[in-house]
Amino acid sequence: LLAIKAMLDDSPKPLAGRHVLITAGPTHEPIDPVRYIANRSSGKQGYALATAARDAGARVTLVSGPVALEPPRGVEIIRVETAREMKAAVSAALPADIAIMAAAVADWHVTNQGAEKIKKQADGSFPALQFEENPDIARFVGTHPDKRPKLVVGFAAETQDLEANAARKLTKKGVDWIIANDVSPQTGIMGGDHNMIKIIRSDSIEAWQDMSKQDVASRLIARLSEALEESIEI
Amino acid sequence: LLAIKAMLDDSPKPLAGRHVLITAGPTHEPIDPVRYIANRSSGKQGYALATAARDAGARVTLVSGPVALEPPRGVEIIRVETAREMKAAVSAALPADIAIMAAAVADWHVTNQGAEKIKKQADGSFPALQFEENPDIARFVGTHPDKRPKLVVGFAAETQDLEANAARKLTKKGVDWIIANDVSPQTGIMGGDHNMIKIIRSDSIEAWQDMSKQDVASRLIARLSEALEESIEI
Repeated sequence: LLAIKAMLDDSPKPLAGRHVLITAGPTHEPIDPVRYIANRSSGKQGYALATAARDAGARVTLVSGPVALEPPRGVEIIRVETAREMKAAVSAALPADIAIMAAAVADWHVTNQGAEKIKKQADGSFPALQFEENPDIARFVGTHPDKRPKLVVGFAAETQDLEANAARKLTKKGVDWIIANDVSPQTGIMGGDHNMIKIIRSDSIEAWQDMSKQDVASRLIARLSEALEESIEI
Repeated sequence: LLAIKAMLDDSPKPLAGRHVLITAGPTHEPIDPVRYIANRSSGKQGYALATAARDAGARVTLVSGPVALEPPRGVEIIRVETAREMKAAVSAALPADIAIMAAAVADWHVTNQGAEKIKKQADGSFPALQFEENPDIARFVGTHPDKRPKLVVGFAAETQDLEANAARKLTKKGVDWIIANDVSPQTGIMGGDHNMIKIIRSDSIEAWQDMSKQDVASRLIARLSEALEESIEI
């Protein structure tokens, strides 16, 4: 049946033969065996991108933090919890033609994790948490010495100074595009079904109107397919 | 159809006319607009208890933290995020005949929340988080001056010294029963579909074998129905 559907399916397959690596969702950084630090990423945009890349004919590897979504069929899913696990999974999944780093990776992890559940203190205080910066996965991929994908796309979720913060990440992470969006709670974007993005490149900023995360995904994949063609022709 | 089903349903309704208040799930305590502290509670045990109480004929109010579960039909659901919101919702839902505090309420919240997303610091450090203890919701209900339910049940999720920690909570929180379980990661209980509990009362400890959270729920509700009858007779 799948073979018949494939024969009947006349949609273009611009990414046939390509490997697309996508990260999605939050990471969870443990405090003790039951508590962790999380963020409001639902993984919806990353999963929609994986679906769109698959529909465009790519072989897709989806490295996903903890989310409540069903993985798209025909996509290789690798589930991780922490930023450090996500980096290891991304590293193992390279090489790829396109990497889309859509996960909301925690910037820090707790170094003084409790081996047992931390109890209330007699004085009501909480033991001071010590933090260490997590690996920058987009930067790791964007500056990879021998396995850098032809196109590397980072995401910047900001609540203020969106374009300035995003443009800074473009340089720092060595990525080709930054997809920037405003995740202030009143936008309803983080965890929601719609998205309003800006595509930030070294020489341009392009603002898209508010649309569903599915529409963002299919348009972005179409644009990335074109850009990949151009980069190969050059 | 529902009326016909109700007429055909000859299961006993020991909680008919009773109000059962149940809390479930984790609480999320914000760090900034996108980050928060969470715990691994799935809400499954609390939701199963709400279903079992409804099946026993009770009017059920379920105060739920953020979970990925469908609320049982015929149960009033009140969704909250933080411990402080949960306390307010519980307070508003009183009086009740039985209160079952199954939520894994965060013990602390962050007092120096970022109004904007906290950025990486130049030196790689994370701004020190300051914590303040959350209200003890089980204690609030267990020691309520004029609306204390006839039966108040607390939960104790521990990773060590299970019985001692749980017994201490019995006194401190003024509750009638503590349902204690070992949530060490290797037990698979937190987030999983089974549970292995101990019922701790002032004069007894009763250990149940490992069983599904549904079975724990229906047996506990049956036991609570009997205890409620006895308390009223006395």
